[in-house]
Order: sequence, then C-alpha cells, then structure tokens
Amino acid sequence: MLRKNAVNRDIPDSIDNRELHPFAGAFNTNPIGKRKFAPKLSISKPNNDKLCKTVRDALEKAQVRDGMTISFHHHLREGDAVVNMVIEEIAKMGIKNITIFPTALFAVHDKLIEFVKSGVISKIEGSLNGPIGKFVSYGNMKNTCVLRSHGGRVRAIESGDMKIDIAFIASPTADEFGNCSGLYGKSACGPLAYADIDSRYAEHVIVITDNLVKYPLVPHSIPSTRVDTVVKVDSIGDPALIVTGTMRITKSPTRLLIAKYSVDFLDKIGYIKNEMNFQTGAGGISLAVTKFMADKMREKNVKAKFINGGITKYAVEMLKEGLTDSLIDVQSFDLEAIESMRSDKNHFECTVDEYANYFSKGCLVDKLDVGFLGATEVDVNFNVNVNTHSDGLLLHGIGGHQDVAAGCDITMITIPAYRNRLPIIMDSVTTVTTPGETVDVIVTEMGIAINPLRTDLIEKAKNIKSIPIMPIHEMKNKIEKITGKMEKPEKKDRIVALIEYRDGTIIDVVREVAL
Amino acid sequence: MLRKNAVNRDIPDSIDNRELHPFAGAFNTNPIGKRKFAPKLSISKPNNDKLCKTVRDALEKAQVRDGMTISFHHHLREGDAVVNMVIEEIAKMGIKNITIFPTALFAVHDKLIEFVKSGVISKIEGSLNGPIGKFVSYGNMKNTCVLRSHGGRVRAIESGDMKIDIAFIASPTADEFGNCSGLYGKSACGPLAYADIDSRYAEHVIVITDNLVKYPLVPHSIPSTRVDTVVKVDSIGDPALIVTGTMRITKSPTRLLIAKYSVDFLDKIGYIKNEMNFQTGAGGISLAVTKFMADKMREKNVKAKFINGGITKYAVEMLKEGLTDSLIDVQSFDLEAIESMRSDKNHFECTVDEYANYFSKGCLVDKLDVGFLGATEVDVNFNVNVNTHSDGLLLHGIGGHQDVAAGCDITMITIPAYRNRLPIIMDSVTTVTTPGETVDVIVTEMGIAINPLRTDLIEKAKNIKSIPIMPIHEMKNKIEKITGKMEKPEKKDRIVALIEYRDGTIIDVVREVAL
Repeated sequence: MLRKNAVNRDIPDSIDNRELHPFAGAFNTNPIGKRKFAPKLSISKPNNDKLCKTVRDALEKAQVRDGMTISFHHHLREGDAVVNMVIEEIAKMGIKNITIFPTALFAVHDKLIEFVKSGVISKIEGSLNGPIGKFVSYGNMKNTCVLRSHGGRVRAIESGDMKIDIAFIASPTADEFGNCSGLYGKSACGPLAYADIDSRYAEHVIVITDNLVKYPLVPHSIPSTRVDTVVKVDSIGDPALIVTGTMRITKSPTRLLIAKYSVDFLDKIGYIKNEMNFQTGAGGISLAVTKFMADKMREKNVKAKFINGGITKYAVEMLKEGLTDSLIDVQSFDLEAIESMRSDKNHFECTVDEYANYFSKGCLVDKLDVGFLGATEVDVNFNVNVNTHSDGLLLHGIGGHQDVAAGCDITMITIPAYRNRLPIIMDSVTTVTTPGETVDVIVTEMGIAINPLRTDLIEKAKNIKSIPIMPIHEMKNKIEKITGKMEKPEKKDRIVALIEYRDGTIIDVVREVAL
Repeated sequence: MLRKNAVNRDIPDSIDNRELHPFAGAFNTNPIGKRKFAPKLSISKPNNDKLCKTVRDALEKAQVRDGMTISFHHHLREGDAVVNMVIEEIAKMGIKNITIFPTALFAVHDKLIEFVKSGVISKIEGSLNGPIGKFVSYGNMKNTCVLRSHGGRVRAIESGDMKIDIAFIASPTADEFGNCSGLYGKSACGPLAYADIDSRYAEHVIVITDNLVKYPLVPHSIPSTRVDTVVKVDSIGDPALIVTGTMRITKSPTRLLIAKYSVDFLDKIGYIKNEMNFQTGAGGISLAVTKFMADKMREKNVKAKFINGGITKYAVEMLKEGLTDSLIDVQSFDLEAIESMRSDKNHFECTVDEYANYFSKGCLVDKLDVGFLGATEVDVNFNVNVNTHSDGLLLHGIGGHQDVAAGCDITMITIPAYRNRLPIIMDSVTTVTTPGETVDVIVTEMGIAINPLRTDLIEKAKNIKSIPIMPIHEMKNKIEKITGKMEKPEKKDRIVALIEYRDGTIIDVVREVAL
C-alpha cells in the first residue's frame, strides 16, 4: 500500500522486507529505543599481530562470507583504488550476495557494475554518483538501493538499521597496530571523518594503507582499539585524483553573479558580522562564494567564529588571514587544506557524528548561520532535489544536504536558472531530497526567491534594491520564458532506490527509468 | 561459598547480589556477549539551549532520583570542587541511596563521609584515596566498594557491568553547546581522557565549567554530541592543587639510587636503544627515572618513539630536545605539560579506552617496552599491592597499575626496601592488586630481583656487576634483617571492598580492619 508522506510523495509500506516510515516533517520523528548493534567486545594482548600480507589474508581472517554487509568511505574520491581492490578479491573468493555500504561511490567505481551482474554485489546502501547510478536507474539491480545523508548514515548505524560486518578503512598512513591518519603519506586526504562511525560499530575493521609506519602514529584520527587487521598495499589510490592541486574559481559570469548575489544578500540582511559562521563546499559556485565572503568580511572588518565544510585553500587563506577563528573539517579537497590541518590546531577534524547526526545530543549543523548548498532542481514549495536529473536518472548522492538544510539558520540554494535548456525551478521536483520547510533562499542569476515561511527574512530584505528579489513563482515563470516548460520523463512503476531522510523516514522514492 | 582464585585468594560466589568471577590468570578470561548499555538516542535540533543557570537546574533537568549511579573524573585531583558541589546539591534535594562512580576520590573529597552517614551515598564504585578509604576500611559503609583499574573501568562501562545515569564532566573550558577542553582556562588540567567513556555511555551528561566560551571551542576533547546540559559556575576547583607549578625530583639518596639502578639495569640488558618507549608517572622516583632515562639516552644518542603517562615537564623537555618522537598523555601533572599539549601536535591526548582497555582490539599498554610502577607491598610471588597498607587500611586506588603490568614487556616496580620500619617484601601481600605473572623486576635500594618466569631477563642480566641482582627471597631476608618480620593486622571477616582485575574478575577482597 502506498501512503502520502509530508512532502506529498507516495511511499510504500515496505520494500525488500523492510518496513518503511514515511517522512513526517523535518523535526517530527523521534528515535525509538536504544542504540542496537554495538560491536562485540574483543581482547587486547601484548604481541597482538594485526599485520596481514594481502587483502586476501585480511578477508580470510575476517571470515568474509555470502550475504555480509561491508562498508567503505570516500575520502579518496575519484582517486580511490580500495573499493575495487576489495570487491575484486571477494569475487575471486567466490563470495556472493554482498551488500556494500559506502559513504559514496564515484565514476572510478563503475567497474562494480560487472560484480553486480555476476551476483557478487546484490545491494547498495549508499550514495550513487555517475555510472552506477545510471545502471541502477535503468532497473539493473534486483534489490532497492538506499541513499542517506552523511548524518543519516551515522544515525542508521547507531540506531541499528545497518549492521556492518566488515569495514574497510583506506588510510593514507597507518601503523602496524591500526592507528590511522589521512594527514601524511603520498595518498594524503586530510580527515578520515566518514570512516569514524564504521570503525566504532563494525564487527570487524580492516585498515588498508600504502604508508605503513612504526607504532605509534601520532596524531591519529582512528585508534588501534577499533582495528582488527592492517594490510600494506602498493597504492590505495591516485594522488592526483584524491586531491586537487589547485582549485580554480569559476570564470562563468552567471555563476559569479549567483555568488555575488548570495553574499550581497547576506550583507544587506545583516548576516556579515562578527562571530558569524558558514558552511561551503568545493563546487564552482561555492569557491566563488568563499572568496566573496572573505572580500566582504575584510571590507567590513569582521571575523567569523568558524567555517565548516569540505575545506579548500580559500577557507585556509581566511584562517591564516585571521578572518575566521577556526576551520571545522570533515573533508579536505586540496593540498593546502591538508597542510593546514597538519600544522594548525585551529583547523579541526570533526567526525560526521559531530557534524550532522540528528539523533545525537547536538551536532554542528544546528549551530550554522548559513549553509550554501547546490541542487539539480527546486520546486515552488522549496523542495530540493540533489539526487536525480530531470530525466529521472539517479546520478548524485545526498551528501550533507538534508543535514545542513535542517540545521542552519539560512539555507541558501545557489544554482543557475537553467542547465542545458532545462529550467531549474518547477512545480514539483523529480525527487525530493530535502524538504522545503528547511530551505530558505534560492539564488539564481535571475535574483533571489525567499521561502514564504521565512517572514523574518522577507521583512529584512524588503528594502534591498541592488538584487532582484521575487516570489518563487515569478522566478519560475521568467525561467520558463527562456526554456519552455519541461517534459516529465517516462518512468516505470518499479522503485529502484529509496531516499531516506536524515531521521530514517522515507522522503521519496526513485522509480525505474524507461530506456 | 568461598573459592580460591588464581592468586590463591578466597573469593565469595556473590556479594551485594552481584555474581563474582574469580581471577583466572592475567589473560584467561574472555568477554561474554556484546556491549550492553549503549545510551539512548537523542535529538539534535537548531536552537537547542543546553545552558543551565545552576547545578540544581541541571540536576532537575536530568531528573536525578534515589538510587541512581552518577560518575565523575579526577583530572582536577586535590583541587577538585565539582564532586563536593554536586553531592551537596543532591543532598539538599533530599535524594538518597546514590552510587558514586568516580575515576578516583582524593582527600579533598573527605566531606563525602557525612553524606555516606546521612544515606545520600550508599555505594562507591571507584578508587578510594586517603580519608574515605580509611572510613570504608573500618566498616562504615553498608555496601561493598568496588575498585577498578583505569582500563577496567572502561571495560566495566562498555560491557554493561556499570550503567551511568548521570555523568558530570568538570571541564576547565566549555562552550554553550557542550564541547569540552582541559587545555584552557584558569582551571586548565590538560587531557579530559578519564571522562571520555562516561560521556559516551552515560544516559545524561552534565558539563560543569568555570570558563564558558562561545561555540565552537576548537580544539576540544569531548564533543557536543554527547552533552545534555552545560552549567557555568564561579570555580570548578583550586588551580594550585589541580596542577603543580614545578615538580621537583626527589633528593632522597635512597630513591635516587632506586632510579639509577632501574635505568642502569635497562641499559645493561639492551633496552635503551632507538625506537624504545616507556611509561612513567609523577611520583618521586618516577621523576628521577625520567630524568635519568633522558641522561642515558642523550649519552647513547638514541631516540624513543614515545613516552606515555601522566606527563610532567621532564617528559616535555625530552620531546623538545628530540629524545622522543611523541608524548601520549592521559593526565598532565604540571603547567609545562598543558602548554606542550596546547602547542605541539606530537603531544597527543589519548582516551583511557585507547590507553588501557583490555576488551578492545588493541590498547597502548600492549605496545609498552617498560612500565615503571610503584607499590605499597610486593610478595615473593611478585604479586603487588598498591591498594592497602600493611595495617590493612585501604588508602589508594589502582590507577593504571594492572593494565600497564599486563601489557608492557618489562614491568618494573620501583620501591624503597622499607617504609616506617615496615618491610616492603613479604611472603604474601596484604592485598593482591596486580598478579605476579605480569610483574617482572623489583628494584629497591638493596638491588634488583627478577621474576623467575622471566628466564630471558635473568639470562640477559647474568653478567651485570654494577647492580646487586638477587633472588626475591634473598632480598626479603636482607630487608627483614633491618626491619624484623611484620605482624599481620587484625582483620574482621566482613568484606568492605572488591579489587577487580582489569578483565572484570575478582583478584582480591579487602576485609574490615578492627579499630
């Protein structure tokens, strides 16, 4: 049976034997019961030898078998070699029916498709980016995929929705006892924040490194107490794709205008002030926003308490210049960010639990003033889609989108008004990732639309002359004059993926796309 | 019914309705089942106000009630004002029958005695130092006290032996969201490592600080995600008693000789070499040992991988001089150690789980080469007592003694041959804290006795001429020629305290002392 949820989507009662709870509003679902699957107690003895010669040895020691759930983290991004390495070895061992539970998959993982076809992988619970998403969209996987936000994934583990049999930690440096750091080594990636929760809750933890050092590795992000075995390999990935040498700010006049409108708007409504804070990322518009925020803060002689994010050299420069007291980092995107985290105690690694876990006693997103976020689509109810394109294909993960939007004071969606002649604003988004009640401002090159729920912001913005401010319907009409109305893609009934909200309810489903 | 355990002590089947497992050898007891009492899931919402005006408000918000278990940590040592402050408030509220579960109590907490008498406190699970220990020894508490090692306390929480209803974190600096650090503020104490496990497992966590700063406090040791409320008070303690201004090395020729013998012995058997490591503390002999180790390492031009401990300026100087790559710290004893931890990333705060938890996947003590430890008594089977004096009074906690002894390669007990005319070596210690199988070398001013189990060390030491090396019976006889034999104290049958081994078994009991 289908039930309408709070954003008016049809959600089935159950799928793949899992009972589904429909999304009930951003803050309306309470945790039930206790944390469940805490890992087994172990024993720490002197001369405990954790080193394994090969991934195969480590898999055998972990007693990998059919039907297990194994997890990965994505700090190595498009440079990652560990996911493919592990799955290939599992396939060679004749193991079938594995659930993979990565924080995200990238184009580099498109070779997993062959292992889905051969039955090694039967389910994916994790963000899907690119080719695998496309493969899933066309109905090629038997089981339904489940996508979660960063914070939602932590919640799912802690509350026992997901039990990890074996967690794999790709660690740029590790010692023989399993202490892990992403700060050092040829494959340095910065924080290991995504893997923290896996290391705490997995029954078995395997560290894979290409830079094995003698105990103790100090400082470290993940301690020996959570690690069963350590494997040294020649390479955990391609450094050139793990971090970017130097990230460049967009030269697109459209995107620069969007960044400018965003910062000017915040200034006019009084948000550029001492002790402010914000979150940005590493996308084209985000880098420009960071730079323009720095310019504005310098001009006004104000200082932020913190910047959170995916950290890049633009944020590092703000820390060095004294424009912010601290950087709080779950993911570093360039070498400058990694070097800063190595040397500056005010550049702080934060676990994803601490960053975004809704079922905790208080996570960082709730303290954010402003979150700059992207979208593939927005609708007139301010619902945001970051997962699917307008053709229905599932091509992106959720990231921290739901978490930041729910937590921060002003959620600002910065997007071009259209892409490839497709309008960005519509009556109803293809997929609801983030509910409109948590989204405050849409910024395009056409100007700014404020969520009518935010009467306070509308009041503050009423005298702004330098930026076109308009109702969302007006912005939609303006865009459609250029692009025309969009056609809905042809979709089949079958559900290929669930979009979980950060509290574990289902905010939307993704249906199979006709070829 | 009483049963003999592996160190030949009589252990009852049960006490206070708790079934007791007799100690079965240092590495012979396996964990049963899973971690149990993981705390409830919570909710993190924007504008979550955690600040309470008074301790009373925080206690009411925590719904404190009769029979609860509340926990404390002892980083503020003799300077601590928080334990007394909380218990006084609980008493004013008319609450009775509280179990307190501190990491340790000190002389400053002797006023708790009145609250035991009035029925506010009915049980103590934690180390007893000084006046309260004496009070308990004379049979003044109805329930049996339970003493655990640092690692054993973490194990007891994780395995569900102890469930904490409310944990109190005395934090020298905290922000309004509950992030905690011991590095800053007038009451700075360094690490908050003892409180880490409490913050993870307690149902409710209250932070008490005298230095409230604006979010986010970066870096921090305990994150907001685990904290329910924050209370600002005028003072959490007396800075002069929290840390020592400058610690001085003993001037006692006896103690200096013991330190010299210890270091010379390690040198002769080949343990002073590159990549070595050791643990010391802040006692009189320990400081001298640290200094002599530095001298010897400088002389031999060797460098340690790490020093672990209670850290003092003597270890900090070794880090600065390049005699060690890193310091790993669960407790800082002086201002130099705190300043070093603030400014040097190679001075690393380690949780007690990571330091000493036997039921983990690998803790630091297992990687130690040498642990320098104290004792009140040693017996001819190398069993060590650190809890009671020869008069039977329970005056000291276990600290990390059992953990370090079990983990490290060479456990070296450094003690004067007699104190107040009482011999330190005897046929059978008053109380077994640490089993002889984990103790390797006894160093007194008479010379050195090596555990016969360590045939490797006896072989290595056979050509040493510069230090008197003798069997333990010979050392005992020499001491008794000076002191005479010791009389056993008169003890009653009633058990007033249990000495838990780090694995949760009972290694000994403490019986009531006749007045």
